[in-house]
Formats: sequence, C-alpha cells, structure tokens
Amino acid sequence: MVKLTVLYGHPIDPTAFEKHYADTHMPLVAKMSGPTRTEKARVVGTPDGSKPAFYRMFEFWFDNQEALQNTMGSLEGRAAVADLAKFATGGVTVLISAVE
Amino acid sequence: MVKLTVLYGHPIDPTAFEKHYADTHMPLVAKMSGPTRTEKARVVGTPDGSKPAFYRMFEFWFDNQEALQNTMGSLEGRAAVADLAKFATGGVTVLISAVE
Repeated sequence: MVKLTVLYGHPIDPTAFEKHYADTHMPLVAKMSGPTRTEKARVVGTPDGSKPAFYRMFEFWFDNQEALQNTMGSLEGRAAVADLAKFATGGVTVLISAVE
Repeated sequence: MVKLTVLYGHPIDPTAFEKHYADTHMPLVAKMSGPTRTEKARVVGTPDGSKPAFYRMFEFWFDNQEALQNTMGSLEGRAAVADLAKFATGGVTVLISAVE
C-alpha cells in the first residue's frame, strides 16, 4: 500500500483558503477515482505548544504505486493539482510513502 | 478523531537510523496503549521527482484529544519521545490534527 500526503503550509488568508478548499477543491478531489481511502485533517497544534509547521493535511491511500500514478495522471487528478495554485498560498509539501 | 503525525527529517546515517528505529524505537511505540490505529510509512518520493522533504512518517489515531494526551503523558509515551534524541538525527516535525 502507498499513500500520498499533502501538507499545506499556513495560508496568507485562512478564511479565503477554507472557502475555496470546501467549495471548490474538495469537490475536485471527490471526482478522483482510485484511492482506497482518503482523510482530511486540520492541524490543531503540536505536543510542545509551538506553532505547527503545517496548516492542514490530506492523505490518499492506494493499493500500489501504479494506482497512485493512474489517479494523479488522470484528468481529475490533474484538475485537483492545478487547483492548488488558486488557494494554497502557504505552499504544499507532497510526499509519496510506502506503508509498511 | 485526532491524529498525531511524526515526520522524520533525513537522518545523517540512514542505516543507523533504521537499525535503532526497528530494534529499539518500534518496540517502545508498541508499548504505548491508547491509539485506535497506527501507521508506519517510509517516504519513497514526490510527484515531481524532487527530493522528499521528509524521510519517514508515523501516525497515531486516537478517539479524542484526551486519549492522545493520556498516551503521550504516560510513562510509555514519554519513553518513546525521549528515545527520539537517540536516532532521529534529521529532527522530527510533529503535528496534532483533527480528522474531519
């Protein structure tokens, strides 16, 4: 199993981010077929009380690397990636991981 | 539901990291009671082929924030956290997130 993790940096305008994320980005993500599971999460803190390094995270799990590549290479996957530039003003850090 | 995400930076000596991680750290993590689920993953790449920002990630899911705090405040949780200094030479970035 592999997963794609999207770590969102802190946006310039969180209110604008949240609106675009809920109204536009999530519907685009929902159109992506292939993941066996997805998880949306809002970073709320750190164990030591310092400012979190990221603002939000979203993960997609796939059966294997090929399924991940098929999804990300699809029209729907590319539309979701292209949309990031419209609201992710804090940048994104993306990881592909092998689940052990 | 909340989750604790540990993102490991690239270690100075990956071989030494892997040995300590498997032989010492994972057994300490296994002693921690409270998480409803855990997931261990090794970062293998990024969508654009650039060097990944992190080396490994590990996640713990809990029913709620109180359960997370109880686990991290337990003797076993503190032992696992204290162990990080012994092998995580690339540092750790830790996030607490609310799963939506």
